[in-house]
Amino acid sequence: MGKIITVDREFGSGGREFGRLLAEKLGYTYVDNELLIELIHKESSYSKEFLMTISKGRPTPKFNFHTAASFQDMRNIQSEDVFDHQAEMMISIAKERDCVVVGRCADYVLREFNPYRIFVYGTMESKIARCRKFARPEDVDKSDRQLEKEIKWIDRKRKINYEYYTPQEWGRHFNYDLMINTSSRSVEELVDMIYRDVRE
Amino acid sequence: MGKIITVDREFGSGGREFGRLLAEKLGYTYVDNELLIELIHKESSYSKEFLMTISKGRPTPKFNFHTAASFQDMRNIQSEDVFDHQAEMMISIAKERDCVVVGRCADYVLREFNPYRIFVYGTMESKIARCRKFARPEDVDKSDRQLEKEIKWIDRKRKINYEYYTPQEWGRHFNYDLMINTSSRSVEELVDMIYRDVRE
Repeated sequence: MGKIITVDREFGSGGREFGRLLAEKLGYTYVDNELLIELIHKESSYSKEFLMTISKGRPTPKFNFHTAASFQDMRNIQSEDVFDHQAEMMISIAKERDCVVVGRCADYVLREFNPYRIFVYGTMESKIARCRKFARPEDVDKSDRQLEKEIKWIDRKRKINYEYYTPQEWGRHFNYDLMINTSSRSVEELVDMIYRDVRE
Repeated sequence: MGKIITVDREFGSGGREFGRLLAEKLGYTYVDNELLIELIHKESSYSKEFLMTISKGRPTPKFNFHTAASFQDMRNIQSEDVFDHQAEMMISIAKERDCVVVGRCADYVLREFNPYRIFVYGTMESKIARCRKFARPEDVDKSDRQLEKEIKWIDRKRKINYEYYTPQEWGRHFNYDLMINTSSRSVEELVDMIYRDVRE
């Protein structure tokens, strides 16, 4: 069984970068949604674009009435199907290798491996600044207010997704071993801290 | 100006022990409510018992009607007076020495010193277990349910106190640089992690 570190994160906090750099520094396998989709794509008839849409889609609680229920049910089944595939893959990677897994409810999916569960967050101000730094051309002119709205919306989707697939509350401190604020220090410094902690 | 680490904590999480051991290991001055009360006691006519009661008392928002208002106002003034004294003392210690300060809204009071703001927490299960381990004789027979109620009550008082004296939300992740869960690792291990982080 490998040593497992899971990273969940607020959008714009640099959690993905943190996870990638940490894996690199530790020499662990880096796992995220894109890698898992790539693997499923190779094994299945689904296109990457379809898998990406489905994996980021928000599962919707089932209606008790019939209008539109069948389409919604179908999307939920597809979402659950992709989630289950990704979960199986994560488990099979975790059985064989040390890894850092970002997102995908990994702290819960891999709970039997006793992972080091990290949550990365930041102040809204610093998350907006980071989004601005890495903005796509079409997002450059967005106001702080617009960016804040989008950050909150993405985190809301993450929360709904996490709470659909796990019995836990997303971002709730006691579900994580460590919560790290990227607003006051560089991601590299924080990676160093965890690197030393894991290595010593 | 000294290097400053502030530690706030949930009751029963071992935050005080964490702060004390960290100060010891780093060779920093350890500051908590008791030390500050000892210092005020030496400078003033107040007894230690009185200062302890006042410092732990919950400031109460002022009533808009007259019944009981004068007694409450007096207690609030006393609380604020002790808080202000403690704040001045913290600032004067922080100006001269490296220190670890536990509680007393230190992260906010010392904000101009750019402290390393740590929040220590745990699962309810582990906090109950810790309380049981250090139980006073009269508390030995308490049920888990009773202990949980008391832990929640003390944290509620801490929250009210913190939010009376600062414009921030107590325990809210973005007000801290690091949040540490003591449920899955020993306090000594966690102290080592921060020791290395500060020393390197």
